[in-house]
Amino acid sequence: MTPASTAQALIDRWDTGDVLAAACPSRTILQHLTSKWGTLVMVTLATGPHRFSQLRRRITGVSERMLAQTLQQLEADGFVLREARDVVPPHVSYSLTPLGAEAATHVLALTAWIEGNLPRILPTPQKQAAQP
Amino acid sequence: MTPASTAQALIDRWDTGDVLAAACPSRTILQHLTSKWGTLVMVTLATGPHRFSQLRRRITGVSERMLAQTLQQLEADGFVLREARDVVPPHVSYSLTPLGAEAATHVLALTAWIEGNLPRILPTPQKQAAQP
Repeated sequence: MTPASTAQALIDRWDTGDVLAAACPSRTILQHLTSKWGTLVMVTLATGPHRFSQLRRRITGVSERMLAQTLQQLEADGFVLREARDVVPPHVSYSLTPLGAEAATHVLALTAWIEGNLPRILPTPQKQAAQP
Repeated sequence: MTPASTAQALIDRWDTGDVLAAACPSRTILQHLTSKWGTLVMVTLATGPHRFSQLRRRITGVSERMLAQTLQQLEADGFVLREARDVVPPHVSYSLTPLGAEAATHVLALTAWIEGNLPRILPTPQKQAAQP
């Protein structure tokens, strides 16, 4: 499908039935995947399984609480698999499910495209003001 | 590149230099593209140029103010072209730039994937609670 026909198909689907009801679940999922920490977790897990402590070291600046919450959301969406091995000390590992791996390819494509095209996306006073 | 190597390349880029400085501009762009109205505007414009009033009718529920703000952000990012024809009454048309069309393909791929896979993304009490 061309981008225009993909877009038209999406709009047609939004138009059938209750737009709000149809849009809400996907909106929630989109926010989970494109939130600051959601994106970083998906990108990091796309390189392979990680333990909680490894993820925390890898994703600079994330708090224990935010990382736990992000992983819980992505696990609830079916994107992340949490595996606890019954050993001492406890060993908990996080990895992408097959569904999560599919989602990750699209998140990766979008974020890699933005990263790779930043020089083409010209800075403007408006954008500079939005950055801390 | 495989998803794992794409992810690793992204992480390597984030690791060079100041992570915050490197991540911030792309973070802002990602938020513009994946915000509720940003996504809907990109998807709608992917079907072709629209006038402001057409966009407002097309994107149910958006206020005049939010639509104007969303279009300004996407225009500042270089994704949307605003063309005003000097006629009476004034004719202002919005379309995707070539850069915007590229960005739109990735936004479309991600949102279409989520829409198409909602039945596989099982509802959980947590997610149901997050929906209004």
